[in-house]
Amino acid sequence: MKTPIIFDTDPGVDDAQAIAICLAHPDIEFLGMTTTFGNVTIETATSNALLLGELAGQNIPVAQGAAQPLVKDKFPAPAHIHGANGLGNMDIPEPKGKALPISAPQFIVEQVNARPGEITLVAVGPLGNLATALQLDPSIITKVKQVVVMGGSIREGGNVSPVAEANIFNDPHAASKVLTAGWPLTMVGLDATHRCVLSPAHVERIRVAQGALGEVLSGSYQFYKAFYQEARGIDGCCPHDSCALAWLMKPEMFTVERGHLSVEVEGLAEGQTLFAPQGREFLGNQWSQTPLVDVCVNANGEQVVEWITDVLTAKAS
Amino acid sequence: MKTPIIFDTDPGVDDAQAIAICLAHPDIEFLGMTTTFGNVTIETATSNALLLGELAGQNIPVAQGAAQPLVKDKFPAPAHIHGANGLGNMDIPEPKGKALPISAPQFIVEQVNARPGEITLVAVGPLGNLATALQLDPSIITKVKQVVVMGGSIREGGNVSPVAEANIFNDPHAASKVLTAGWPLTMVGLDATHRCVLSPAHVERIRVAQGALGEVLSGSYQFYKAFYQEARGIDGCCPHDSCALAWLMKPEMFTVERGHLSVEVEGLAEGQTLFAPQGREFLGNQWSQTPLVDVCVNANGEQVVEWITDVLTAKAS
Repeated sequence: MKTPIIFDTDPGVDDAQAIAICLAHPDIEFLGMTTTFGNVTIETATSNALLLGELAGQNIPVAQGAAQPLVKDKFPAPAHIHGANGLGNMDIPEPKGKALPISAPQFIVEQVNARPGEITLVAVGPLGNLATALQLDPSIITKVKQVVVMGGSIREGGNVSPVAEANIFNDPHAASKVLTAGWPLTMVGLDATHRCVLSPAHVERIRVAQGALGEVLSGSYQFYKAFYQEARGIDGCCPHDSCALAWLMKPEMFTVERGHLSVEVEGLAEGQTLFAPQGREFLGNQWSQTPLVDVCVNANGEQVVEWITDVLTAKAS
Repeated sequence: MKTPIIFDTDPGVDDAQAIAICLAHPDIEFLGMTTTFGNVTIETATSNALLLGELAGQNIPVAQGAAQPLVKDKFPAPAHIHGANGLGNMDIPEPKGKALPISAPQFIVEQVNARPGEITLVAVGPLGNLATALQLDPSIITKVKQVVVMGGSIREGGNVSPVAEANIFNDPHAASKVLTAGWPLTMVGLDATHRCVLSPAHVERIRVAQGALGEVLSGSYQFYKAFYQEARGIDGCCPHDSCALAWLMKPEMFTVERGHLSVEVEGLAEGQTLFAPQGREFLGNQWSQTPLVDVCVNANGEQVVEWITDVLTAKAS
């Protein structure tokens, strides 16, 4: 049986890789994309989401969402990481299609209510769309099958501050709402994604197999790779967003702990995810009041990268 | 040449071990102890500091200091970890001596001014005494030789909250002042101390070698050990406070990174130490404005524990 998913995304180079997985995986029923600001502006996110589907010859619904954070001011999009156009400044065409006439949160609410208990939300950008969906219709908490969030960091340190991961930092108030809503949720953060390095050799195999989409994945990867070379000294990129799908489809590649998450929304630790393992006692109980969730604290990086490459070279089982 | 030190302490079981090292090490000139609340009340800290020196047959000056945090309310002392008397509820005598007639911060200021450029402050409790010494006489910033702080955690997670180490959590405002004062400072936190486990066999050797003091070190260790067995599932204890001395006397056992520390003083991440490695860029510069310090990010635990045991069994080189 296929897994029906809505993919909430801010494409973004590693988002594009993950979208390609959604488009290619035989066991994923790709219901639609909801877009958010984050790696790029909301307009660019929507345009890229439409284009990536079209390059694969598929007509995937796209609903545009959050243009900015719930509470804090928006930072400029990180053009030095993903390129000003989110796809490594490649020369890409305009998409032919258009976004749906309904907003991302409304799309989520409608889809989840139409198929209660079936749909998985996979969110790999700032979490404003999911937060607003919860605001529009809190009943979706019991109607989604599960929620998978790429974001946060427990022991790995941050990538935009010493302690904060970018998606959570970009909208900590939304993240706090989504990560503590009480729905079945798994966080796939830097503790897992930093174990995974997609190498140039992997991407070359993907380029060959993926046609027009493969050219965009490969070209944008070269730009993204330069950032990783400089910032982290590695020859390759962490396929952050694909890791959320890897956990969803093959969770045995990850180490998961169950416990309580909370999000610091301001101050020096703004955007930090704090994790209190189930049953662990601390000096107060303020960190252990939130609903239990699963957190990926490690990953078998080689297996994850092979899985990504296998899916995108049509050898997925 | 001997290293003159003032040891700021809240004894405490692992403090007692470290005090024994100060008393035993042939290359340490033990100028005095300054006491603070923390593992125990200030009165108990002072009494234990006096007693531990006397058990070793030495007359080490003790100056009493902070009874509570600078700003926040005081938590009750953790009697389940160190015992109500700080030494595992052993039956111990009253000390014969008395504390000095001057306060801990004044003792620090007077000593440092008397020997500018010579004295090392080793602080293994909440940092109120050092903070107040800085308030009394900011010129000590340039007059201490160095400051070694046992406290904080970068990647290891916390021991009293998901992210905060106890000494910093107990007085985050003092910690913020001390860790960012601009003096030559090394932080020895959980990233290093959790690599070290003092086993029952080590402590038995220490008991035999240390006479009356050894009986207290061994007896209090048995109580402390029960906590570690339950809380962390290890057969032994982390000798946190001794690690600060181990770094001071044999730094090659540690991995050190240079960078900027800041301390979150409130909210969910209260008491967290945030570390921005020198030259690492983040999404803003608010984490990289503090003076450069050294942070122990790892330790060779076996070497450290052997060093502690060697010092306390009179085989120190």
